[in-house]
Amino acid sequence: MRLPVIVGLDTLGGDAGRAGDLASRLCSRVSGFKIGLPNLLSCGGIGEAVREACPDSLIVADLKLADIGNTMRLAASRVVGWSDAVIAHAFPGVEGGLDELKAYLDSEGRKLLLVAAMSNPGASRIADKVLEEVVGVIGEVDPWGVVAPATRPSIIRLIRGRFPGKPILSPGVGAQGAEPGSAVNAGASYEIIGRLIVDSEEPLRVVEGLAPAYKAVMPGGSRF
Amino acid sequence: MRLPVIVGLDTLGGDAGRAGDLASRLCSRVSGFKIGLPNLLSCGGIGEAVREACPDSLIVADLKLADIGNTMRLAASRVVGWSDAVIAHAFPGVEGGLDELKAYLDSEGRKLLLVAAMSNPGASRIADKVLEEVVGVIGEVDPWGVVAPATRPSIIRLIRGRFPGKPILSPGVGAQGAEPGSAVNAGASYEIIGRLIVDSEEPLRVVEGLAPAYKAVMPGGSRF
Repeated sequence: MRLPVIVGLDTLGGDAGRAGDLASRLCSRVSGFKIGLPNLLSCGGIGEAVREACPDSLIVADLKLADIGNTMRLAASRVVGWSDAVIAHAFPGVEGGLDELKAYLDSEGRKLLLVAAMSNPGASRIADKVLEEVVGVIGEVDPWGVVAPATRPSIIRLIRGRFPGKPILSPGVGAQGAEPGSAVNAGASYEIIGRLIVDSEEPLRVVEGLAPAYKAVMPGGSRF
Repeated sequence: MRLPVIVGLDTLGGDAGRAGDLASRLCSRVSGFKIGLPNLLSCGGIGEAVREACPDSLIVADLKLADIGNTMRLAASRVVGWSDAVIAHAFPGVEGGLDELKAYLDSEGRKLLLVAAMSNPGASRIADKVLEEVVGVIGEVDPWGVVAPATRPSIIRLIRGRFPGKPILSPGVGAQGAEPGSAVNAGASYEIIGRLIVDSEEPLRVVEGLAPAYKAVMPGGSRF
């Protein structure tokens, strides 16, 4: 059984060989992989390597796009060759922004994920004031799924309540402080775990060690 | 004399040869170049090519970063080899976000630019509600400069009033509708012009044709 874990490959320094090797050892045990902007800017072919290692895993290009529609569409076009889903922020809004990105990803058969809130402490200063507007943008754009931080379970509960059928991906588990299982317990579909797994000497053993945390909060199995 | 124009190279499809050629023809007439995420994700070495063509121009890596500090720092580390400045959003806030990015760029002798507002119509839905908070983050982080849209001169005036000494870069001139000269007239230091120049058959002639627009609004020469 695959755990509701998406492995964040953000600290690999763009090393495609190491990423492909790590992914191939983990893909039967986790739900997918998230490849961040630092790795993609390293230009080492890491996305293609992970796709080759794990043909049927969910692979997310974590571009955190936040620009005008034309630029977001062009940026997404660089990753649709190997990714299933692209992460963008909600704050560019719909018109001349996410409308164009959503239409493009739909035309390519790829998924859009919108960020509801970020996981670092400073982000709440601005994001908390516009959470209702962000939820409104998510409702209007109707992305495949939502990104909400494990460090703030109240936001996961809010998003789960507003969008009962949408996958929720939660970063912030492990190095950023949230306990494995805590985001799923609050209503998330997947927890994104990076450094805890990737920086370990024995990543497979770390993943296997996570199973009880999910079993405890998902007695009936995965929500999706 | 160099015009207060920064050429946005967003539509070149990652073609480093074309970018280097275009830049070498323009760098004595414009103030700099902005290289966007789509081009950088194309992995064609476009940043290095523009730097080689124009060693003393201001070269801006337009990553529009909006993530936790650790990820923004790693992403910025991929472009400091050829760029003078990196664009990030104010939305991530200070703690665990822009504080880490600013410290990293300072340590590398590179400039930080923070986005005050975006230029697409839909962006005002969220951004207008938090403009005061965004200005507060800019004041606290103290970046080298600010990005404010030419399509919204009232925001340029606000930022110029709050931060009299900071360079302001304004996108939105040309294809997005603002007239050349209008953002400088409102208080911007540079106008970012992309498609109008880059998609032209005769980019140098387009740039030369812009000179009167700036002469009219800058009788005393550039502000910076």
